[in-house]
Amino acid sequence: MATNWKAKLHEIIYEADTPEGKLFDVILLILILASILLVMLESVSEFASKYGTFLYVSEWLITILFTIEYFARIVSIKKPSKYIFSFYGIIDLISTIPMYLSFFFVGTQSLIAFRALRLMRIFRVLKLGRYIGESNNIMRALNASKIKIGVFIMFILILCTILGSIMYLVESEQDSGFTSIPRSIYWAIVTLTTVGYGDIAPYTALGQFIASIIMILGYGIIAVPTGIVTAEMATLDKVDLNTQSCPNCAAEKHRNDAEYCYNCGESLHPEETD
Amino acid sequence: MATNWKAKLHEIIYEADTPEGKLFDVILLILILASILLVMLESVSEFASKYGTFLYVSEWLITILFTIEYFARIVSIKKPSKYIFSFYGIIDLISTIPMYLSFFFVGTQSLIAFRALRLMRIFRVLKLGRYIGESNNIMRALNASKIKIGVFIMFILILCTILGSIMYLVESEQDSGFTSIPRSIYWAIVTLTTVGYGDIAPYTALGQFIASIIMILGYGIIAVPTGIVTAEMATLDKVDLNTQSCPNCAAEKHRNDAEYCYNCGESLHPEETD
Amino acid sequence: MATNWKAKLHEIIYEADTPEGKLFDVILLILILASILLVMLESVSEFASKYGTFLYVSEWLITILFTIEYFARIVSIKKPSKYIFSFYGIIDLISTIPMYLSFFFVGTQSLIAFRALRLMRIFRVLKLGRYIGESNNIMRALNASKIKIGVFIMFILILCTILGSIMYLVESEQDSGFTSIPRSIYWAIVTLTTVGYGDIAPYTALGQFIASIIMILGYGIIAVPTGIVTAEMATLDKVDLNTQSCPNCAAEKHRNDAEYCYNCGESLHPEETD
Amino acid sequence: MATNWKAKLHEIIYEADTPEGKLFDVILLILILASILLVMLESVSEFASKYGTFLYVSEWLITILFTIEYFARIVSIKKPSKYIFSFYGIIDLISTIPMYLSFFFVGTQSLIAFRALRLMRIFRVLKLGRYIGESNNIMRALNASKIKIGVFIMFILILCTILGSIMYLVESEQDSGFTSIPRSIYWAIVTLTTVGYGDIAPYTALGQFIASIIMILGYGIIAVPTGIVTAEMATLDKVDLNTQSCPNCAAEKHRNDAEYCYNCGESLHPEETD
Repeated sequence: MATNWKAKLHEIIYEADTPEGKLFDVILLILILASILLVMLESVSEFASKYGTFLYVSEWLITILFTIEYFARIVSIKKPSKYIFSFYGIIDLISTIPMYLSFFFVGTQSLIAFRALRLMRIFRVLKLGRYIGESNNIMRALNASKIKIGVFIMFILILCTILGSIMYLVESEQDSGFTSIPRSIYWAIVTLTTVGYGDIAPYTALGQFIASIIMILGYGIIAVPTGIVTAEMATLDKVDLNTQSCPNCAAEKHRNDAEYCYNCGESLHPEETD
Repeated sequence: MATNWKAKLHEIIYEADTPEGKLFDVILLILILASILLVMLESVSEFASKYGTFLYVSEWLITILFTIEYFARIVSIKKPSKYIFSFYGIIDLISTIPMYLSFFFVGTQSLIAFRALRLMRIFRVLKLGRYIGESNNIMRALNASKIKIGVFIMFILILCTILGSIMYLVESEQDSGFTSIPRSIYWAIVTLTTVGYGDIAPYTALGQFIASIIMILGYGIIAVPTGIVTAEMATLDKVDLNTQSCPNCAAEKHRNDAEYCYNCGESLHPEETD
Repeated sequence: MATNWKAKLHEIIYEADTPEGKLFDVILLILILASILLVMLESVSEFASKYGTFLYVSEWLITILFTIEYFARIVSIKKPSKYIFSFYGIIDLISTIPMYLSFFFVGTQSLIAFRALRLMRIFRVLKLGRYIGESNNIMRALNASKIKIGVFIMFILILCTILGSIMYLVESEQDSGFTSIPRSIYWAIVTLTTVGYGDIAPYTALGQFIASIIMILGYGIIAVPTGIVTAEMATLDKVDLNTQSCPNCAAEKHRNDAEYCYNCGESLHPEETD
Repeated sequence: MATNWKAKLHEIIYEADTPEGKLFDVILLILILASILLVMLESVSEFASKYGTFLYVSEWLITILFTIEYFARIVSIKKPSKYIFSFYGIIDLISTIPMYLSFFFVGTQSLIAFRALRLMRIFRVLKLGRYIGESNNIMRALNASKIKIGVFIMFILILCTILGSIMYLVESEQDSGFTSIPRSIYWAIVTLTTVGYGDIAPYTALGQFIASIIMILGYGIIAVPTGIVTAEMATLDKVDLNTQSCPNCAAEKHRNDAEYCYNCGESLHPEETD
């Protein structure tokens, strides 16, 4: 009987195919959005002073609801540790615990801003909908070009370290904000990515010359990640080639639905043909 | 007789194939551009003080012409409600009414800036011209990748909410502008999109470190919408060529739907022609 | 005899195939670069006060050389008006005349900065070299997508006018720089193109919200010109298809080197085959 | 015997296939990262004053290790001049010598920031790993489009020179930072590349109008390098599939170099196999 009740709860909380599961997901999503709105309003001083009590009570209400949800998730799953130490489990804990800690420690309440992390659950919930296919396509393209993008980011970071160090040598005498190498590297990243805050900006002619080179570099190499992802996406739209190698001649890059090797005519799935 | 007159008016106002219709569209376009120029000049204090009377009279003149046009559109259409509650109908109303309201309420005159919305009618009018095909091609690519772009924007917004909340925790103690979570989210959007005003900029080492991550993220994921639209456009533009070789002259790279060899004129599908 | 001398001069100045023509182009390029360097140094106050006399004499020397070149170009061409009113002819005139005008009018000397326009002659001169093919390829892609890019820019301008007008309504009360509609439109362009100076930045919550929308818009629609050019370039690298229509069946988009219609097998060049 | 010892040293230092060689590379990489971290911390005044002695001793330790490495590289190679005057040889020298020079000259110690250049050795060391293929692919695409990118950058520089000169004419009277032509060119680069610091920003209406044109230009022509690299990458990645149909089972979309049908294993070129 108890198991039956747990199974029902599990179905509602963890599955999304049943009407109850969908309803639960929708209510959860609304609660998450409401909780984030509350945290936002709380941080705006005019709202905090005007509607302080209302915000405080609402935040406690939502915290209690989230706490109930947290324990319901633990109770209804077979291996609670699997949920507790999962990515979403940790986020769920982080987004409820600061309110309780605020009884004992001063200032921990501001940590409730971590509740914004729960927004990521949207991706989970929307897996229900039609977005899944589309989103997966982008994800697959990003996934396929993971290593290329990694190499690219490493290249950017090394470039910014070198350029930032050089700019520190050039500009540190001036009063233009290049007060240390880490700050100069931060400036190099701000410049290369074409963000350009202007809180730190070169003043000497040589500094502005180097900065110009960095900008043109950044303007040009933005083509690299774009090229990587675009090429990958264009490939995904075509026929997929896999890296399975032929048991007879070791040729690679067969069509995904290939039954025979394009190179030697050998069957690629010997056990299936027999 | 009255119907005849209405039909003629309808033809002039709503259709663009007749010489009168084209003339009406061109005059309307010029009036719209003139009205926007007036509103712009009015907002520049030097002009407003110098040519105040001229601008005021001109604005009333154009408002009266727009009012006549508005009623002509209502009169000449069979179902006036269809126009009145249409997108363009509402814009047309909004861009004339503030002038009349300025008799009764102070300050409503500045709402006349909404007249800029009438500029959108340009797209309608230019449908006449050769731009239609080109513009439609872009529209089709954007339309085809609508959902992907939607998922992408949602992803950006969630990312900015999370990153903004974290930055609020890190920087709110400092005097660097992160005064509330919504403002921090605004900053995260400014940074991720590589706009970088610099009105709000991180000051602590940790804040600058997180900011660097956001910038590199923004610099990298701009590749995603670009990849989506490019892949879509490449698909729309392509006429596929195949490598089937001609049975007569062995020429390759025919159009996929080719029936005859482009090089020797031989039928590419002998069995089908017989 | 005089004609012979003129023909020789024409060959040196206007043609680039002979050794003398190449030498002339290289010397001209060096002179142009030197003249621009002079103008630059002149504008830097430290240099102007230190080396004033040297810069003044050098500028006159180069101006005299350019004047000689200008008259040599007029003399050696058959129809002088063709050169005088050509694009390069007008630039050549503009880049020499301010120095002479400085005798009569005060301040015209600064107009010599227009000399930078002569830099465009580099493109002409480098046509000699290997860059021609590459540069032409980019030019062809830009040319092919001319109309699409035009529609796109018009769309951007209309969008910025509308958004700038709305921002003027929202922010003009504040002291955040939105002092007039044209200035607000300027800000909208600064924001949409992700430049983001920060000299004008929204202050109200609503203004920052609208600004966020503009930024995400700008971040997203940068994909459009990129998509256009990329798709065009990808097409150029492939086999060219032309829009010649078959004399027999009117089918279009044949291969550029096609001799026969792919659709009906009819010869595409009847006169050539006979 | 001595040669044997030198050969062993050469193997460890210059080669990466042996376990010792790999270990040496990993230790070197860690030392380089540590040395850069030290230089960074040294430049932050709070750290420099607190841990000054520790940083100074550590820096000397690493300098001595780098000196030993430098001489070991010279000793173990057959032609020492080949290493000394190589790219990495010069960097290695530059990154050790400032510490020694600091005995004789004041201020040279700050030149130690050049040590960041040693980070480039990461690319050498990581050639061991799996990144090589990926990184090479990007490099090949960049290499293939080298000339196109060169032409593009030259175009950008000329454009910025011309636009900067014009802006100097327009804005130099104002107090908006356009104090000289080189500074105006710097501003044009900052604007065209969409960095937009805001340290220099146009103030006059005409200046803001020209700036708007530059921004839209910059926003649009970023498509050019992106288009170049993307087209190149798409070409490199592609395995062409043709639409030749199998004589046995009529399956289509074989690899261009396919000898046998992927679907039924039948030879695609019967005449060749016989």
